[in-house]
Amino acid sequence: MVSIIMGSDSDLPVMREAAEILTEFNIPVEVTVVSAHRTPDRLFTYAREAAGRGIEVIIAGAGGAAHLPGMVASLTPLPVIGVPVKSRNSIDGWDSVLSILQMPGGIPVATVALDGAKNAGLLAARILGARDTDIRQRMADYQESLRQAVEEKYTRLERDGWQ
Amino acid sequence: MVSIIMGSDSDLPVMREAAEILTEFNIPVEVTVVSAHRTPDRLFTYAREAAGRGIEVIIAGAGGAAHLPGMVASLTPLPVIGVPVKSRNSIDGWDSVLSILQMPGGIPVATVALDGAKNAGLLAARILGARDTDIRQRMADYQESLRQAVEEKYTRLERDGWQ
Amino acid sequence: MVSIIMGSDSDLPVMREAAEILTEFNIPVEVTVVSAHRTPDRLFTYAREAAGRGIEVIIAGAGGAAHLPGMVASLTPLPVIGVPVKSRNSIDGWDSVLSILQMPGGIPVATVALDGAKNAGLLAARILGARDTDIRQRMADYQESLRQAVEEKYTRLERDGWQ
Amino acid sequence: MVSIIMGSDSDLPVMREAAEILTEFNIPVEVTVVSAHRTPDRLFTYAREAAGRGIEVIIAGAGGAAHLPGMVASLTPLPVIGVPVKSRNSIDGWDSVLSILQMPGGIPVATVALDGAKNAGLLAARILGARDTDIRQRMADYQESLRQAVEEKYTRLERDGWQ
Amino acid sequence: MVSIIMGSDSDLPVMREAAEILTEFNIPVEVTVVSAHRTPDRLFTYAREAAGRGIEVIIAGAGGAAHLPGMVASLTPLPVIGVPVKSRNSIDGWDSVLSILQMPGGIPVATVALDGAKNAGLLAARILGARDTDIRQRMADYQESLRQAVEEKYTRLERDGWQ
Amino acid sequence: MVSIIMGSDSDLPVMREAAEILTEFNIPVEVTVVSAHRTPDRLFTYAREAAGRGIEVIIAGAGGAAHLPGMVASLTPLPVIGVPVKSRNSIDGWDSVLSILQMPGGIPVATVALDGAKNAGLLAARILGARDTDIRQRMADYQESLRQAVEEKYTRLERDGWQ
Amino acid sequence: MVSIIMGSDSDLPVMREAAEILTEFNIPVEVTVVSAHRTPDRLFTYAREAAGRGIEVIIAGAGGAAHLPGMVASLTPLPVIGVPVKSRNSIDGWDSVLSILQMPGGIPVATVALDGAKNAGLLAARILGARDTDIRQRMADYQESLRQAVEEKYTRLERDGWQ
Amino acid sequence: MVSIIMGSDSDLPVMREAAEILTEFNIPVEVTVVSAHRTPDRLFTYAREAAGRGIEVIIAGAGGAAHLPGMVASLTPLPVIGVPVKSRNSIDGWDSVLSILQMPGGIPVATVALDGAKNAGLLAARILGARDTDIRQRMADYQESLRQAVEEKYTRLERDGWQ
Repeated sequence: MVSIIMGSDSDLPVMREAAEILTEFNIPVEVTVVSAHRTPDRLFTYAREAAGRGIEVIIAGAGGAAHLPGMVASLTPLPVIGVPVKSRNSIDGWDSVLSILQMPGGIPVATVALDGAKNAGLLAARILGARDTDIRQRMADYQESLRQAVEEKYTRLERDGWQ
Repeated sequence: MVSIIMGSDSDLPVMREAAEILTEFNIPVEVTVVSAHRTPDRLFTYAREAAGRGIEVIIAGAGGAAHLPGMVASLTPLPVIGVPVKSRNSIDGWDSVLSILQMPGGIPVATVALDGAKNAGLLAARILGARDTDIRQRMADYQESLRQAVEEKYTRLERDGWQ
Repeated sequence: MVSIIMGSDSDLPVMREAAEILTEFNIPVEVTVVSAHRTPDRLFTYAREAAGRGIEVIIAGAGGAAHLPGMVASLTPLPVIGVPVKSRNSIDGWDSVLSILQMPGGIPVATVALDGAKNAGLLAARILGARDTDIRQRMADYQESLRQAVEEKYTRLERDGWQ
Repeated sequence: MVSIIMGSDSDLPVMREAAEILTEFNIPVEVTVVSAHRTPDRLFTYAREAAGRGIEVIIAGAGGAAHLPGMVASLTPLPVIGVPVKSRNSIDGWDSVLSILQMPGGIPVATVALDGAKNAGLLAARILGARDTDIRQRMADYQESLRQAVEEKYTRLERDGWQ
Repeated sequence: MVSIIMGSDSDLPVMREAAEILTEFNIPVEVTVVSAHRTPDRLFTYAREAAGRGIEVIIAGAGGAAHLPGMVASLTPLPVIGVPVKSRNSIDGWDSVLSILQMPGGIPVATVALDGAKNAGLLAARILGARDTDIRQRMADYQESLRQAVEEKYTRLERDGWQ
Repeated sequence: MVSIIMGSDSDLPVMREAAEILTEFNIPVEVTVVSAHRTPDRLFTYAREAAGRGIEVIIAGAGGAAHLPGMVASLTPLPVIGVPVKSRNSIDGWDSVLSILQMPGGIPVATVALDGAKNAGLLAARILGARDTDIRQRMADYQESLRQAVEEKYTRLERDGWQ
Repeated sequence: MVSIIMGSDSDLPVMREAAEILTEFNIPVEVTVVSAHRTPDRLFTYAREAAGRGIEVIIAGAGGAAHLPGMVASLTPLPVIGVPVKSRNSIDGWDSVLSILQMPGGIPVATVALDGAKNAGLLAARILGARDTDIRQRMADYQESLRQAVEEKYTRLERDGWQ
Repeated sequence: MVSIIMGSDSDLPVMREAAEILTEFNIPVEVTVVSAHRTPDRLFTYAREAAGRGIEVIIAGAGGAAHLPGMVASLTPLPVIGVPVKSRNSIDGWDSVLSILQMPGGIPVATVALDGAKNAGLLAARILGARDTDIRQRMADYQESLRQAVEEKYTRLERDGWQ
């Protein structure tokens, strides 16, 4: 089970892509809001209990001074994937990226691209696939489907021309 | 009483300037280490109990993905001053600055310049002086002493010449 | 009393959030325009007289090469909160942020996030609450209201699902 | 088994931290050099065969226009952790960070901080621990050891004073 | 013959300018899609075979963590021109620029401006003109046409006035 | 007469280059320290009286949140040249540059390169030369001397070879 | 006489503000297009002849890799004011700013804010006013008019309230 | 013949790498100094005459506001390779990179990495190899030698171990 959390429900349009791709992979997800700054007790409870509830990977998205992924990572031994969200008040996304990526030695967060929730979902699938050949095979199939989609595109472009 | 905390004792050479200037102002300080990521329980206990212990202002310094000032601010109603520290693994200090400054609406952190612990101490003194005419007078005296130090410098420069 | 000033009335849509939140806290405010570059005499008179007029905290917002907060701080012993405004001619807000944040040692400005006027108001309330248990309690209540607002959101999201 | 690769043996002083921490966790590692730009065939062979050789997680470090982590991720279904290295010709590390982090949708790379090889190792351990309670327990123990190290520091600092 | 490739057909509106200007120069072009991350095998085959198919210059455009130009350059001895594309998920184009420009010593990519596909086409023409006086003359004529276009503009502006 | 001021005497090693080049041009200079933040009254008096004292151009250097050039420009109708100084606490000079360059409409500051005090002196000479053919001729001579210095260098390089 | 040039007529909407403010000051202007890259001969002729034609100050605006101001400055002893224009292909204006501001020692360009053509005009007026008391008086009057405009604004705001 | 020019002889330690690698390829080079800002006439003469003198590719290195590559490109139909040099007064190299890379449509410069003179030389060789199978073969051989050097390194590392 993958748990997807975000600092505000305004992040849902970005973060739902993680849930969608994991659902495509038939990997169960839960989706909720945990705010590091407005619900710090909930942050603690959530992160401390996650492993015991059967969560295997956590995806946490946040914007601006984004402390959610790093704080969750400090409170759980599970792998935590951080999604920097380009929120309304962000300085072009740099604050979100740096406050998730630049964790000090000892507490890792697996950071993906700005607004890269889809890749966060795919990374969670790869993590589960590290010791699950079935999921790993589905990932290989997914990569083949990406290849085919590009093949369609270049076939059409080469046939119709670029003009 | 002003409480000065930092994410790591390697921040002490920077953060001690806050303690020194407050001591000059005869304002009592405590100095300790609280790591948001390595001691999250201590972070919670510290921040939740600070007001009850008679702390009036908190100064928190941290580097890289610096979550300490913001997390403390979320757990206390006291004013929190954040000092971005240019730590060893920081990207020129940008990560420290942005992850302290860009707090979401609702939870303010009073951010000072990169490595600006001295100004953090002075800001704490000004905060206490907001309703304490004695401290406020000492701040006015301090500002006058800054003026005099510059006066000495330009007097010497004008007398001796720039060559 | 909190005094809220801004470099131009075009900053009012941003800066009014400071006045609104302070009014919610029943903290009296005054709001006016002081331009460091177009009304330097007014800047001097305003800043020199603020403490004597009963002002306890100053909030100053400005954009671009934003000198207002720092210059006010140099002319008063009161705590000064700076709000970097992303004005029309700003380079993505970086100029506003850096020219307020990076004050030299001796003259602190409590800087909040880009366009973070609401947090400036909340910081002023925390500053006044440092020695006013009534305001401090209202801040604790406000933080509880933030928690409840998030609780409503995740309750709804968990009930209705993310689809 | 975790495979640790780097674009150049000049990255070894940084990347060895990943091997060291994994060895502490009793997780077997292999360490070698694979250059995306100078040994592209080796890159292909390496990445295509990794899963079949029993590799479960790949850690790839590179500097400048760092294509190694992303290219490996495109050629394997395994989870790939990218370590941006601040190499000699890097522009303050920004090139390394952005060319690893900003992967397009479909191909995730789990990016850690600049020169954050230690965290890459810890992230690999967390990934393996997602379905391995033994490794997960060792991670929890490791986090406890971090807490103790900080405890020693603040105990000493509080006892000896900051002067 | 100049081969123009791009990482995604969403780059076509930018990249077609390269094809258009080369067509104006009567230099034959081919245009297709090669994705470094979604079609790595195609990348290899394409790049390895390009010289043998009579391609003389390759123009490669990509956005975000843009690995296409550099990877092609590592697989061919031909000159490769890289066009950083400001794609939808790019951080203001910085990722595209840095991941193409900052190639390590040994494997050069001739980088042009962000979204500068037209200049990529012109650079390809100059490259072919290095040993082809006919193409070189057409480039000189083109530069003269640029001059004339500006001349028309300033003649009109000076005649009609700036009001 | 050109007046050269700086925010701190620690800026003198940079700013003296302005005085030196102007002295070479036989243009009289005065050099002193005016701190916007530590001597605001002196700033006002200095700037307000400059024109009446016969000053024709002001050169002002400052680092970090550099308010000196802009504040002087707001208090005088004279041309003000700003020199961003990369001071000890500056974030790679960006704060100095942006807080001098990005002045709002109405109050111009003629900004030169980071630590570009020599060019500030030369710009002052060009400004005085706008209506002084003697100084303008010396500037033309100076430019010729630059040309000759380069000529010597390439003559030597071409004669001796690059090996 | 002030000469206002720009790299492209697409810069006219920005650059006309320089002409407008100078016309308000009754200072004669000429406005034309000179492209460093598309009309290099015109650049040379223009810059070499400017002083002889009675031009006293040159204002040059350009975007992207903006070479016009610096190249003009290298070819004339007159003061040259550079206006970085945020052109269509600019990376948020950083390229325009840096390629105008960061001139090497020997050849100064007086740089104003991004799109700051109005301030370029005002700077030209200040430069002419350095030795022209009439123009200097008009500048003082202009600064007084700025003050009055702000006075009207704060009077209205204080009278009507911020609500 | 490849012509290598630089804005100052202080760039020689960087730029000589271009000459060295081309000499390894048995491609004749000339190396000299041409300063856009200090020797503009020489710039014109040099660039206008280059093609007629048998030059086929120009490599131009410069730092700060680096106008040399772009101005040369505007004056010749030859391919011009620009090397941004991190000179003493550069802001971390960003000015050099942006003022060379961000050329307007019509005048391309083939930009390489910061201080990437070696790659500039290799790019010149690839350009000449576009229509010269002998040089192209030597480039393929060079790429093979890069591969072998990496092979030696990973063979040694795998044999000796990373400890």
